[in-house]
Amino acid sequence: MSEESKFPVMVNDRLLRAARGEEVDQAPVWAMRQAGRYLPEFRELRAKHDFFTMCQTPSLACEVTLQPLNRFPLDAAIIFSDILVIPQALGMEVEMRPGEGPVFPSPLQKPEDLSKLSPVGDVSTKLQYVFDALTLTRKELKGKATLIGFSGAPWTIMAYMIEGKGSKTMSNAKGWLYKYSDASHRLLKIITDATIDYLVGQAKAGAQVLQVFESHAEHLGPQLFREFALPYLKLICDQVKEQVQLLGLPDIPMIVFPKGGHYALKDLASLKYEVIGIDWTVDPAIARELVGPTKVLQGNLDPCALYADKNSIDKAVKNMIQKFGRCRYIANLGHGMYPDMDPEHLATFVQAVQKYSRV
Amino acid sequence: MSEESKFPVMVNDRLLRAARGEEVDQAPVWAMRQAGRYLPEFRELRAKHDFFTMCQTPSLACEVTLQPLNRFPLDAAIIFSDILVIPQALGMEVEMRPGEGPVFPSPLQKPEDLSKLSPVGDVSTKLQYVFDALTLTRKELKGKATLIGFSGAPWTIMAYMIEGKGSKTMSNAKGWLYKYSDASHRLLKIITDATIDYLVGQAKAGAQVLQVFESHAEHLGPQLFREFALPYLKLICDQVKEQVQLLGLPDIPMIVFPKGGHYALKDLASLKYEVIGIDWTVDPAIARELVGPTKVLQGNLDPCALYADKNSIDKAVKNMIQKFGRCRYIANLGHGMYPDMDPEHLATFVQAVQKYSRV
Repeated sequence: MSEESKFPVMVNDRLLRAARGEEVDQAPVWAMRQAGRYLPEFRELRAKHDFFTMCQTPSLACEVTLQPLNRFPLDAAIIFSDILVIPQALGMEVEMRPGEGPVFPSPLQKPEDLSKLSPVGDVSTKLQYVFDALTLTRKELKGKATLIGFSGAPWTIMAYMIEGKGSKTMSNAKGWLYKYSDASHRLLKIITDATIDYLVGQAKAGAQVLQVFESHAEHLGPQLFREFALPYLKLICDQVKEQVQLLGLPDIPMIVFPKGGHYALKDLASLKYEVIGIDWTVDPAIARELVGPTKVLQGNLDPCALYADKNSIDKAVKNMIQKFGRCRYIANLGHGMYPDMDPEHLATFVQAVQKYSRV
Repeated sequence: MSEESKFPVMVNDRLLRAARGEEVDQAPVWAMRQAGRYLPEFRELRAKHDFFTMCQTPSLACEVTLQPLNRFPLDAAIIFSDILVIPQALGMEVEMRPGEGPVFPSPLQKPEDLSKLSPVGDVSTKLQYVFDALTLTRKELKGKATLIGFSGAPWTIMAYMIEGKGSKTMSNAKGWLYKYSDASHRLLKIITDATIDYLVGQAKAGAQVLQVFESHAEHLGPQLFREFALPYLKLICDQVKEQVQLLGLPDIPMIVFPKGGHYALKDLASLKYEVIGIDWTVDPAIARELVGPTKVLQGNLDPCALYADKNSIDKAVKNMIQKFGRCRYIANLGHGMYPDMDPEHLATFVQAVQKYSRV
């Protein structure tokens, strides 16, 4: 509690309340990748600094995190960082290549490569810059929005560590699951342990909600997910909540977002994550049926809907809110913003959520 | 009927019967992309010939189509070709770039670019080489397996024509759906008309089953699918079946395979496709519930399961067949073979299907 008292009083706790399943006056709203290249002020800063320098410099990360909040009446800020800071902290080199995204020049190729990873103990020290960025941002936010911290889910991180870059099939990483089941579990456990430390550190530093991105759920399917994803997602949620309690911090709501994981929603509802994010391929009514009445749902407008004209966006949001209902709901896109999107169209999205969800 | 009489009598019509919903002694089995780079004899031929030369030379296309049949007791041969022959026939240039796959150097960028496309009337003439390859292959098959023809679904083809290459988000093509709804429908109609002619031509030439690949269903979602995919898939099935009947040919069973289209199965079951293919993320029991008792299901082992050892493949196939049951079922992978797979592992897959599905 002493940790909490050093931060500004919450002026707008709409997202935090909704994530806890409490009543709110209107649906809280934010957008995945709301701090990013579609904003001219982001591109301006990015032109001067390397991507990972921006992640690693708390003042820059804070500035970028707040940029969308300065434009739109969003209910959450998500700390500017990258899910690949975990493999970085485990000793893997990551390069951000223009037009290609993040690349590992030396991906894991065989089980023996696991011995090259750094011990997990160092992770929290190495990622102190994220904690510093969170603390600074929480103060700068002045209680006007909920601060979200995040990490990648273990399978999603493992897939990157093996593929070395984006992949349409993730066939190398999936090859590990089928060929090297034991080594895969060892790797997933290493990433899980690092992630638990990392998320607990984020909670201590001022994050108020934690989102775990299972961005590569689409490559698994029911059986692989149950063996290689679900147990680690469970461990993360259980352990983070337990350790946060031991530290005397307030319980921290957690969101799990399984991109392409339509088949996993029922399984995920058995875990303690308060919020389940869904992508745009999942019908909200079907999601509600699968996760039951008590979970909070987050999503799910097709990000590409922001390419439409403002009237169409307004209509699409109205439709989305009718489908989700106003309770136990956090409005968002079904995936992140793209660099070529018009910021004004995100403004329309946010306004429409607030207009149609007001009680 | 005169067309049919010129072909060898069917010695093995297991797949054809199953596709019609008739009883069979064991589940028919084939594998998407069963003719391809994982076979050394394919790579040998490919080293001497350009990819599209192989598609365009009936004797080569026939040889490659039969290669997997010479190794494995498969119940179907699928003609060696590419879904991009349709945009080619519409006047677009396609290059096959090593390691990158097919690329359109001048993709469609704006609605006005539609005027550059060739008239649909020419398509059947331009694709005569596919028909010749089918006729030759049907004869060479000597009735030992069912010959499958195929095409891409209109949205899948449209997405390639706009993106110009593979894309993780298909955001340019989806941008068209949201920004240029009318032009998108015009383009989809052009592709649909070309595809109908093309598939009817395939039936005339000797194809016995036709599969329509909606490989990019995963990018749509329920609403976009209903507006931009379903009506064209319906038109194709209805028109092909009507024209085949008018030509006095036997009714040709059709398969629709919506990759990533878990959300579309119920809608697709309302069309006349006899068979619905599912990818490995869809639980067979859920698929059956969604499509109802009369449709035939095809699928769906995770292709990456072929990376596992032979015992594990055997177990996975047993499990798959228990889930699908033996009736109204065609065994397949949930997507295509990958180039680094061991042909012997496909052999194990085929043997296991036959072992566990035998009545």
